[in-house]
Amino acid sequence: MKLNIAVLSGDGIGPEVTNQAVKVLKAIAQEFDHSFVFRSADVGAIAIEETGSPFPDATLKLCKASDAILFGAIGDPKYDNDPSAKVRPEQGLLKLRKELGLYANIRPVKAYDELLDASPLKPENIKGTDICIYRELTGGIYFGEKTLSKDGDSATDLCAYSRVEIERVAHLAFKAAQGRRKKLTLVDKANVLETSRLWRKVVTEMASQYSDVTLEFLFVDNAAMQIILNPKQFDVILTENMFGDIISDEASVIGGSIGLLASASIGDKHAMFEPIHGSYPEAKDKGIANPIASILSAAMLLEHFNLIDEAAMIRKAIEKSLHLEITTPDLNSKYESISTSKVGDFIEDFI
Amino acid sequence: MKLNIAVLSGDGIGPEVTNQAVKVLKAIAQEFDHSFVFRSADVGAIAIEETGSPFPDATLKLCKASDAILFGAIGDPKYDNDPSAKVRPEQGLLKLRKELGLYANIRPVKAYDELLDASPLKPENIKGTDICIYRELTGGIYFGEKTLSKDGDSATDLCAYSRVEIERVAHLAFKAAQGRRKKLTLVDKANVLETSRLWRKVVTEMASQYSDVTLEFLFVDNAAMQIILNPKQFDVILTENMFGDIISDEASVIGGSIGLLASASIGDKHAMFEPIHGSYPEAKDKGIANPIASILSAAMLLEHFNLIDEAAMIRKAIEKSLHLEITTPDLNSKYESISTSKVGDFIEDFI
Ligand SMILES: CC(C)[C@H](C(=O)O)[C@@H](O)C(=O)O
Ligand SMILES: CC(C)[C@H](C(=O)O)[C@@H](O)C(=O)O
Repeated sequence: MKLNIAVLSGDGIGPEVTNQAVKVLKAIAQEFDHSFVFRSADVGAIAIEETGSPFPDATLKLCKASDAILFGAIGDPKYDNDPSAKVRPEQGLLKLRKELGLYANIRPVKAYDELLDASPLKPENIKGTDICIYRELTGGIYFGEKTLSKDGDSATDLCAYSRVEIERVAHLAFKAAQGRRKKLTLVDKANVLETSRLWRKVVTEMASQYSDVTLEFLFVDNAAMQIILNPKQFDVILTENMFGDIISDEASVIGGSIGLLASASIGDKHAMFEPIHGSYPEAKDKGIANPIASILSAAMLLEHFNLIDEAAMIRKAIEKSLHLEITTPDLNSKYESISTSKVGDFIEDFI
Repeated sequence: MKLNIAVLSGDGIGPEVTNQAVKVLKAIAQEFDHSFVFRSADVGAIAIEETGSPFPDATLKLCKASDAILFGAIGDPKYDNDPSAKVRPEQGLLKLRKELGLYANIRPVKAYDELLDASPLKPENIKGTDICIYRELTGGIYFGEKTLSKDGDSATDLCAYSRVEIERVAHLAFKAAQGRRKKLTLVDKANVLETSRLWRKVVTEMASQYSDVTLEFLFVDNAAMQIILNPKQFDVILTENMFGDIISDEASVIGGSIGLLASASIGDKHAMFEPIHGSYPEAKDKGIANPIASILSAAMLLEHFNLIDEAAMIRKAIEKSLHLEITTPDLNSKYESISTSKVGDFIEDFI
């Protein structure tokens, strides 16, 4: 298979982890006789510095011309505490999601047996956890109108949702549930929000098309508890953009390291794969960033194109590395300094 | 001291737990020679059934005429899955908060040594945790304009904040931090939301008035992780209404039981005290509901009126009950069936 892959490695630790994923994909291409062509472009703070825009037109063009996008991370603390900054790296990511129509963010959360001890949760509570979160990604309060009064003393953000926006991501979530344990939990705040009541109505109506799937509802505050109290109760979770941001980061603690979680952002025409961790600027260039989430994103990319054996090979290599503790310091109690690229080398060699 | 206390016990397990709190307050009144006068009124689903409104005028009148309100819980599943219901119990609670101007919701979260094992988190991660969450309670997306299109296919919720709304709750949070470990963490989503950027600006400006307090910022998605990964890093957390709803329920898992968490909702003229757990309809009238959160709310009520020794006595009684495992089944591994009212009796007797 021939795939054009846009590589947007971004800020902080983005480049170093993405490099490992590219390395692994190249090994897969060689081993399975595929042709993967990688082209890089700037995004985030680094793009602001170079072009003034966090998501330059050239980058958009490259993405549109590619079959898939491998994304690193964006964000730089120098923008975070400056509420008046007109341009922020995050705008690049949001624009990218919107312009490419990546409306579904998919985040699998698994408790690896090898890492039960690394989790802040008791092993018996999390063993066997296998959740897949579907977060709506191009609507809601992220993209609604924002206002700031002239005197700067009041502000608004609008959360808006339409039936179509809900249906398209919900279809993906229902289908995912059909291929798994057949349970879908809609997380919302229908006791307070009009948009949540719309979500509940639309998803309830759709349920008849997926009669083999059990549909449940959970208020977001309760969900935030249940994910910690009893994560095994969940199969597929579906939720809107802002709640998904919070709930999926929260769920990431189950696995023991946010450095293990990958995500796919899917639309009708494009697909992007990225680790869920951020740019973690404090760790930049120290060789301590865990590349596994990025490498798992590469596996999700392959699965998206039905390259199932290829993805399975990557997953096997990762499990081996976890088992042997060929891992970065965040997960390693045995060896002192296995670097980001050493982990990548191990997985590459395994393949 | 003479106090007029309005008792709004509400739905589900509300009445049974509130009864225990009233019993305990009566014991305190007798022991310390105070005069507490209790008057009850309806709120929530039960009020809808009786008057058509979840927060009848008579209840509002009673609250306004009282020094403090003791609240139980509201909510009934029959309203939750009916997106088209015009009247919902939760509206009663929201109206109450708004009409009485209860703009600050204060939720202490502590890891009791006796209960470290009951928590889903590893004891070493939570031992010593002592957080106080200040949630803004009468603004944000809860109270902004809501719309539903005529065809019922699109909906909006507006999140709005003004400088005054932020300042009044932030002052309380800064002051609380001054009396504690002098650290305040503002939780927001300033990389996406205009309202969050306003929060960050206003709170940053206020910090110079509280130069002994260290102010930190955390994005809500990161906060949702940090609260589980390392809860001990927090002292006082300040946040807006919706984020506070999620974060404080999430934090409640630290203590091992949501049945242990009390809250105060404070305004310039009124104050209300309630357990943070909901109406838990499945447990209604079974005698299994944990009354401690409600009894701790009573302790917070006393502290609000500077009845420090009285509150300390209640807290001591509660610790004793935890220590002896005179607790409801949610916390009890030793005795089989200690009921809601038995726990209340024990604490009453201790006083
Ligand atoms: C960087 C930020 C804008 C982004 C979001 O909130 O969506 C991030 O937290 C994520 O979840 O991908
Ligand atoms: C019942 C509901 C409206 C309420 C809220 O969301 O504020 C509750 O969850 C709470 O936190 O007191």
